[in-house]
Amino acid sequence: MHITPVILSGGGGTRLWPMSRPECPKQFLALTGTLTMFQMTLERTRDQSLFSAPIIVAGAAHGQTVQQQLAGIGIANAKILLEPKARNTAPAIALAALAVTDPQTPLLVMPSDHVINDAAAFQNAITAALPIVEDGWLATFGITPTGPETGYGYIEMAEEIAPEVRRVIRFIEKPDAVRAEEMIDAGDHVWNGGIFLFRADRYLEALSIHAPAMLAATQSAMANARTEGDLIHPDPDHFASSPSDSIDYAVMEKDDRVAVIPVQMGWSDVGSWDALYDLGTAQDPADYVEVEGSRNLIRSDGIRIHMVGVDDMIVVASGNDVLIVPRGKSQDVKKIVEALKTEGKPD
Amino acid sequence: MHITPVILSGGGGTRLWPMSRPECPKQFLALTGTLTMFQMTLERTRDQSLFSAPIIVAGAAHGQTVQQQLAGIGIANAKILLEPKARNTAPAIALAALAVTDPQTPLLVMPSDHVINDAAAFQNAITAALPIVEDGWLATFGITPTGPETGYGYIEMAEEIAPEVRRVIRFIEKPDAVRAEEMIDAGDHVWNGGIFLFRADRYLEALSIHAPAMLAATQSAMANARTEGDLIHPDPDHFASSPSDSIDYAVMEKDDRVAVIPVQMGWSDVGSWDALYDLGTAQDPADYVEVEGSRNLIRSDGIRIHMVGVDDMIVVASGNDVLIVPRGKSQDVKKIVEALKTEGKPD
Repeated sequence: MHITPVILSGGGGTRLWPMSRPECPKQFLALTGTLTMFQMTLERTRDQSLFSAPIIVAGAAHGQTVQQQLAGIGIANAKILLEPKARNTAPAIALAALAVTDPQTPLLVMPSDHVINDAAAFQNAITAALPIVEDGWLATFGITPTGPETGYGYIEMAEEIAPEVRRVIRFIEKPDAVRAEEMIDAGDHVWNGGIFLFRADRYLEALSIHAPAMLAATQSAMANARTEGDLIHPDPDHFASSPSDSIDYAVMEKDDRVAVIPVQMGWSDVGSWDALYDLGTAQDPADYVEVEGSRNLIRSDGIRIHMVGVDDMIVVASGNDVLIVPRGKSQDVKKIVEALKTEGKPD
Repeated sequence: MHITPVILSGGGGTRLWPMSRPECPKQFLALTGTLTMFQMTLERTRDQSLFSAPIIVAGAAHGQTVQQQLAGIGIANAKILLEPKARNTAPAIALAALAVTDPQTPLLVMPSDHVINDAAAFQNAITAALPIVEDGWLATFGITPTGPETGYGYIEMAEEIAPEVRRVIRFIEKPDAVRAEEMIDAGDHVWNGGIFLFRADRYLEALSIHAPAMLAATQSAMANARTEGDLIHPDPDHFASSPSDSIDYAVMEKDDRVAVIPVQMGWSDVGSWDALYDLGTAQDPADYVEVEGSRNLIRSDGIRIHMVGVDDMIVVASGNDVLIVPRGKSQDVKKIVEALKTEGKPD
């Protein structure tokens, strides 16, 4: 049984502003190499002995970007589902589950804006999960924590139910620092990386129990979908009538057959410029001239950046904007984006 | 006897890069207000009871800029001498001394890229100097030091020869830190601000004694000058044949009738971005959005600068370039300009 990759590309985050913008969010940028994170996510599903053609779920505004980036890496057989409106992950995955031809196919649901450095470890975890997934379990992949991070959800794990696979006790929302420390000390907790594996029919069955209105709305949206080449436009009115919810809330926390495969695979959600710095990705020397200084992250898509005697700084230039923020404080980017909104300036 | 202001505008320094560039050096930029430093220098010579029409000496590339900036403040009667080639200050001042109609007119020679906040103090010093200048002395204005700066030349002063006017013992080149400290401790030393007052004929006479080749070359250059409206082009070949030297070396250090008028007048040569920060000039809030941070100097002529959590930083954007350097280190700008030259990039 081949796995159908489902790439979720609907995100439009501002945490990597000014490069990531609504018209070209993070997943469509080549931040860590020559490929975009969307393309690198697809590259991890190239093994044709394991994977069939991918399904992309993206925002309606990004259909052309998705087509171009698929063509850029020679993928011609993808289905592209365009959400008429953002409705969070649970309805997006429902669209994909309804779009497969074989209802029993396992869906490997992946965000398109994460980095996984150890693709072999990831593939091993997938292989380990497959037997219980074919058996009807909803599986998630748990990232081995590297510290008491407060920016991620956690998963508490119970006993092994198969080699490398453990039953989930509960999902825990982003904790405060004290709670995070407790979970790290306790062991048996992993980060929720938002990567899932389950049969399409099993997900739809779970929706029918835990979120029937969502199932009904997405079914109607797909039954009335408009197809345009490789682009599939679910019906906007029906899709808009779906409740907006994440797969975690709508399904995973409620179902009683949920498993987790803990995995160490060099994972990062690249949730900030600091996270990108930590990945240690190379900088393009054509972009800037740095005479003196160290431990800086400098990125530019055109403006020339010249620094001397500056250390531990994040400097990102895109379009006509330059962001300057000390390393360790890049989450404050949102303050700038908010300030710009308040002043009514673009972005 | 009216004084003829002589504005030296030939400088093309890189210390305020990236705003100051060869095509538009510092003196033609509005760095401290709505007027450029060139225009502010002219504004200090508006008193028609004291000053006659100014003479501008500028680089050949800047004739049009000078015309525009004169027109911008309504000065229509200036003579504009365009140096075919940079030959330092002594030959530039010779051109001006040769261009006056009355050879006995006192010339007030001023760099065009300095700030003087207390114009009344400056005018008082000029008035104090006039009697001995009419008597044939070469006068310079000495800036009361605010500390043991190593970036300026110093002047050692002897006794008063007239009210507020003292004889010069010697000129001292930019000292090291120890020597600077010694001079401050000794008292009787002032900074050489590069502002001079002397009769045109007395300067030419001094040249005939101390630098006869320079006098001959500049005389031939003016005798064969080409006039184009208000622009005067001294003959390039004759001018190029002049030795290149500063007025300090060529004349002031050698002559035996040199006087200095010490004056406290809020003077700055705006020799670095740090110096501009110290002047406390306002920033244009349209240029940038600064969410958090303090004691920064932020300037931009187009690029939008966004900073959060950054303190004590100099950020200057001009054209397609952004300079980022910690406060106190802005003299390192020259390293960047040199690096760009080495790499063969423009500027």
